[in-house]
Order: sequence, then structure tokens, then C-alpha cells
Amino acid sequence: MNAISVIDKKRLNQELSYEEIKFIFEGFLNGEVEDYQMSALLMAIVLNGMTDNEIFALTDIFINSGDVLDLSEIDGVKVDKHSTGGIGDKTTLIVAPIVASLGVKVCKMSGRGLGYTGGTIDKLESIPGFRVALEDDDVINQVNDIGVALTSQTKNLVPLDKVVYSLRDVTATVESIPLIASSIMSKKIASGAEKILIDIKVGSGALIKTIEDANKLSELMIKIGNKYNREVRTLVTDMNTPLGKAIGNSLEVVEAVSILRGHGKGSYLYNVCVELASNMVSMALGDSLEDAKKMVIENINNGQAYEKFMEIVKYQGGDVTKLKVSEKAKVIRSNASGVIKNIDALKIGMLSAALGSSAMKQGDVIDHSVGVILHKLKGDTVNFGEPLCTIYIGSEEYYPDPLEAFEIEAI
Amino acid sequence: MNAISVIDKKRLNQELSYEEIKFIFEGFLNGEVEDYQMSALLMAIVLNGMTDNEIFALTDIFINSGDVLDLSEIDGVKVDKHSTGGIGDKTTLIVAPIVASLGVKVCKMSGRGLGYTGGTIDKLESIPGFRVALEDDDVINQVNDIGVALTSQTKNLVPLDKVVYSLRDVTATVESIPLIASSIMSKKIASGAEKILIDIKVGSGALIKTIEDANKLSELMIKIGNKYNREVRTLVTDMNTPLGKAIGNSLEVVEAVSILRGHGKGSYLYNVCVELASNMVSMALGDSLEDAKKMVIENINNGQAYEKFMEIVKYQGGDVTKLKVSEKAKVIRSNASGVIKNIDALKIGMLSAALGSSAMKQGDVIDHSVGVILHKLKGDTVNFGEPLCTIYIGSEEYYPDPLEAFEIEAI
Repeated sequence: MNAISVIDKKRLNQELSYEEIKFIFEGFLNGEVEDYQMSALLMAIVLNGMTDNEIFALTDIFINSGDVLDLSEIDGVKVDKHSTGGIGDKTTLIVAPIVASLGVKVCKMSGRGLGYTGGTIDKLESIPGFRVALEDDDVINQVNDIGVALTSQTKNLVPLDKVVYSLRDVTATVESIPLIASSIMSKKIASGAEKILIDIKVGSGALIKTIEDANKLSELMIKIGNKYNREVRTLVTDMNTPLGKAIGNSLEVVEAVSILRGHGKGSYLYNVCVELASNMVSMALGDSLEDAKKMVIENINNGQAYEKFMEIVKYQGGDVTKLKVSEKAKVIRSNASGVIKNIDALKIGMLSAALGSSAMKQGDVIDHSVGVILHKLKGDTVNFGEPLCTIYIGSEEYYPDPLEAFEIEAI
Repeated sequence: MNAISVIDKKRLNQELSYEEIKFIFEGFLNGEVEDYQMSALLMAIVLNGMTDNEIFALTDIFINSGDVLDLSEIDGVKVDKHSTGGIGDKTTLIVAPIVASLGVKVCKMSGRGLGYTGGTIDKLESIPGFRVALEDDDVINQVNDIGVALTSQTKNLVPLDKVVYSLRDVTATVESIPLIASSIMSKKIASGAEKILIDIKVGSGALIKTIEDANKLSELMIKIGNKYNREVRTLVTDMNTPLGKAIGNSLEVVEAVSILRGHGKGSYLYNVCVELASNMVSMALGDSLEDAKKMVIENINNGQAYEKFMEIVKYQGGDVTKLKVSEKAKVIRSNASGVIKNIDALKIGMLSAALGSSAMKQGDVIDHSVGVILHKLKGDTVNFGEPLCTIYIGSEEYYPDPLEAFEIEAI
């Protein structure tokens, strides 16, 4: 067996064996297979797809490339939640405390943003003092103490995914349902959760652009979960427009707190969070989705979800009163009157990233204080000269024209 | 413009512009585009194909990546010939002197073998003293003096092809009609010939496996030639069984000499050589193919083609009397009686390469004295115990069983 013959087989759209997939992916991690060979294979996978058996094999090899967390020292059912990522997605900050406030154990590992999508870890780090890099023991102790921990991935969790993802990111091989499914599921399984909820974001601001692809991804992740005796549920949610009104790290924390305090009821962000939380609770406690939903809404209304959030922040050393939002704000006013037909999530994401809220390449320093607050949402009417959004500017001087993200149709 | 967006476009099967192709390929040559990005792009090209405009652009960028030879100091029409490569292909050694003996100017640049296919330059180097690395001025002087020169490619001829080909070789991205066409045609055009004959080898021992692919390649190369005002003719010839009886460098020179002396008449090798030479003569002199064929056969019969070969060898410092063939020979006898249904070209090529006749990777030292002589050809009958072939062994101890290459059917 050699790397060239394995790539060649995939090029010819023939099924790779477990041994072949192991040989080439582990070889890549060990430095025995060159990055230019792995990228050729990845492109062949992107264009020719993978069979279920290939996907199961790859997921398995991913999981076994590093540590597998043992959460058995935590009592009760452990639930995890994952979002495929999008613009303004602060749902973890809202959903984790809601669910934990109902007694469900949540051990949530999150990632950093890269490119135009933000990452939960960056958002948490915008809270001065907040420790995101917890050791495994700390996580277990914290979940036993307060029922929930929000942490970055431990270094040796699926290290193969890290190196493969870095390569995919620079070789235009990110958009592959099989690769996305095995990347996400391997991390979720290795991090020890028994019940997993996946929020599949679909639209211009998401990796997944169509409902068809979202359904394929959903089906595949459930299949992988079954292989490992993990209950997997998926929700497909919209990411054509940004999620909520705030985009940017500190700004999103502020918005998350506001939702937890019961504001924004009826908004899409509020509804998505209630839906996600209800599913997690229903999976963990075995209640019907309807009953779970009632409990979720009750714990938002009675302040317990918000209290849990503050408890997490305190436990992990953070102080929300010290959140920093840039004072250099600029109000962007509409140059037209009409109805907002769309606010392009991708364009808002790129604007926020250009302002400095997200790392455009690995190693970039990000500015937690910058971002965008939308004053109008999709479907709202707007008059000429009315504020559409406010941008919070840092040291970056060049950024796209915010007006380009708004599609306004004259009435 | 950046490398990722160009790869992404090709991944999505959208047509790349001239500027995009230039950006990414020149960037690769300059070291600005990473090899893992180029290999991802190459795989996307292999799987999604290229439009004619993309192929023309790539060929143009290839040509302009290095020197373009000016052969205007040579009087008369300059004809070149190229073979897409195969097992036992010594046609250049035979065809070039035949054509030159008829007054046609031949300035032939050849390559080395890699993997299981031999290269004309390796074959020429098996003649002790033969200089293959001629300078441009030497080539022009020699062609003006004796009408023909056989030389390796100058260092700066299409340097982009060299780096791209090296990468294709190790990333399973060799088998692409558009990439093969632009690689070959860019070199032929940059090396200055006005009329170009391409011998497209098809079969198990060739890069091109099917007649359909051969026809596509043919059509494409003629199109590219037209773009540059070069007359291009193509011949599709068989490479399912080795070409001729000898495989291995010195052994092939001996066989070439034998054909030039009029032996082997009626054999496939002889017929292919006559066909190739006739086409080159007809293109250069404007005669009908029929008339050209008569002249070609006449010059084999009257010894002028052989004389021209000896003139070339002498001019370039070689001495055929010193050709070295390994004395460690082993006769391989048939283990069955019947008709030889096939002699697998690829297996014979791999056997010869394993014996040491070809570099398996760049930098390998090759042994000119080793190889295979077939005693039986396809269609011959053979009795149990009769010699099928003789292998000439060097210092390599491990090689495949020669019998595996022969398919014998009981009568």
C-alpha cells in the first residue's frame, strides 16, 4: 500500500478499505504522507463523495487519533450540543445555562472562530477573566458542582481532525458532507456525551447552503451516532440572515444575557434557543418535547437560566460587568425607503471579521470589542435616513460598506 | 484573487479565466502558491476537466514560463515527433535517422524514463560516450551539419511543466487528458518545431488506456497546435503488448539498429516506424503519404537510414561497438503449451524497471545493461519448455515472475 495508490483509487471513485483510510490519514498525522498528497485525496473525496462504510471508518480513525474523554465520574445523562456555525450564533451561551438550570448535565466543548464565522470560545473570552481552557479534571469537578462547564477542546481531542481541517481550510476542500459529518461527530463522540443535538445552519452565512445538503448531513450524523450508541437529534435552522441582532464577541455576550433575561421573546434567536434547549432537555430527561419546552420557558421567565449563566461566569473566573464594547461607533443609515428583503449573513460576517472580530488566518489577534448591531431585521420597513445598524470599530481601517448587506425593496 | 478562491471555482466546475490560471500556476512556480494547494487544484481538474479556453490558457502559461527556442537559423521545415510513452518504445532512435536521411530537418528533444516506461534519453545514454545534453547552439550547428540532433530538454524549457509534473506524479493526478495535452504541446511548441507528429500510445502499458481517450487527446492536441500555427498530426498506436522484442536500454538500441538495417520487416515495430517516418516526411516535404512511404522504405533498404544513425552517434561522441548488455542472462521457459493470447506491456515494463532499467523515483541510478528480450510475440504458438524470453539481470535481486506477463491459451 502506498499513498499514491490510495489517492488513485479514490480518484477512480472506488471504495477505500478501513486499512487504506487508516494508512493515509494516520500517515498524514505522523508526517509519512505529504500534505500535497492529503489535499489531492481530500479534493477527490469532495468531488467523488464517500460511502457510509468509508465515513464510519474515517470517523473511527479520527476518534482514535487522540484521547477519548471519560465522563463516567459525572452522574446523570450528559448532553452536548453542536452548531455547524454561522453569523451571530451565540446559542451555546444561552442554551447551555437554560438546560443546566433544569438539572441536565452539560459538558460543552467549543471552538474558536475562523474566517467570517465567530466561535463560542472567542465570545466567552470577551468576558474579562473567563477561563476557557479547562483541564479534564476541572471540567468533571465543575459539572459535578454546578451542572455545566463551557470549555475549549482539550489539546489531544481528535488531533487528526485539527491537521486535516487546517489543510481543508486552505485547499477549498471544506464543503463536503462526509468530511463535515465525520469531523463533527468524531469530536462529539470523543468528548464523551451520550446524547448529542446538532444545530445544522443552512443559508448564505453557513457552510451548508441548501436544505438538501442539510438533510444529507443530518441523516449521516444520525447514522454515525447510531454506530456508537449515541442518540443524535438534528435541527435545521436558518442562516441566510444573521442570528439575532448582535455580531461580534462582546456584543453577542450582551445579547445572550438579554435573551436569558427574557427579552427578545418571539424573535428568531429566542425561538431557536428555546427549540434547541427543549430538545436537549427532552433527550436527557425523557420528557416529551412539549413538556420540555414548558420547562425551558419557565426557567427563562423565573430567572433561573440567567442565574445559571452568572454562576458559570463566576465559576470560570469571568466578570460580565467588565465587558468591553468599542466606543468608536458609527451609525449606518439607510439610503433608501422600503422593506428589508434580506440582510446577507455572509456579508455581515465578513464586515464583522474585517472590523477585527474574527481571525482571518490562524494566529490573528482578534478584537473582542468590535462588531455590528442590527437595528432593523429582515421584513422590517425602513425610511430613508433611518439607522440600519451601528458598527463598532477598532484599529482596522478598511472594511466593506455595511449598506451592501441590506437588500431593500421599495414598497 | 487568492489561491483558495481559484481552487474553489474549479471545485464547483466553473470556468477559470486566463488571469486565474496564470495567477495560480505562476504562483506555484514562484513558490507563492503551496504545493498542497496546487495538488488540490490538479485533482479538481482531473475530475472536473477543463474547457478549451482553459486548456489554451494553461498551455500558453506553460510555454511562457521558460525559454522558447528559436530554430530560425536552421534552413528548411523543422519536424518534431513525440510519443506519449510506453514499453519498448524505441521509435525515435529509428524514425529520426530515417527522416533525416531524406533531407528533413529533425531537432528532437527527448525525456528520461520514470516508473515503468523507458525514456529515449536513457536509451541514447546506454551508448558509451553519447552526449545527450546539447546546448542550443550545438543543436543548431548539428542540425545544419547533419540534419538531425537528438538531445535532452534544455533546463529552462517549460520549467512550469517540470514542477507540475513532479507533483502530479506523486498525487495520482497524471491521468488527465487536458493536463497531458497541455504538458506535451507546450514543450513541443516551446522547442520550436513547425510540424509536429504525435504518436499516441494506447493500452495497458500506456498512460492512455482507451481509444476514446486517445481520440480526445488527439483532437485536443490538434486544436492547441492550430492556435499556434503548428501543423499537428497524430497516430494512435497499440501499447497493450510491448513494442518490439527488446525492453531495456542497450537492448533497445541493438533492436533499433537491427530495424534500421532492414531486419524485422512486417513486424509491428517496423510498421509503426515506417508509418511515423512517412507522416513526418509527408508533413515536411508536402508529398503524399504514399510517396513518403516509398521514400522511407527505400532509405531503409539502401542503408542510408542506418548510415544516418551512425552519423548521429559519431557526431554526438557515442560508440555502438561498446554497448554493454549484462552477461547474467536467464532464459525463461514456458510452463504451458498453446497460443500466446497476450504479453502484458505493463507487467513487462515493471519487470524491466525492477531489473534496474528505469528510475522508479527521481535520482535513481539506472542500469543500461539489463532488460528483457522476448522470443515469442502475441499470436505465436509455444510448446511447454520452449523459451518465452531472456532476462538480463544486474544487481537487483527481486523482480516479478516473468511468466506472469504471458497469457497462454491451450489450443
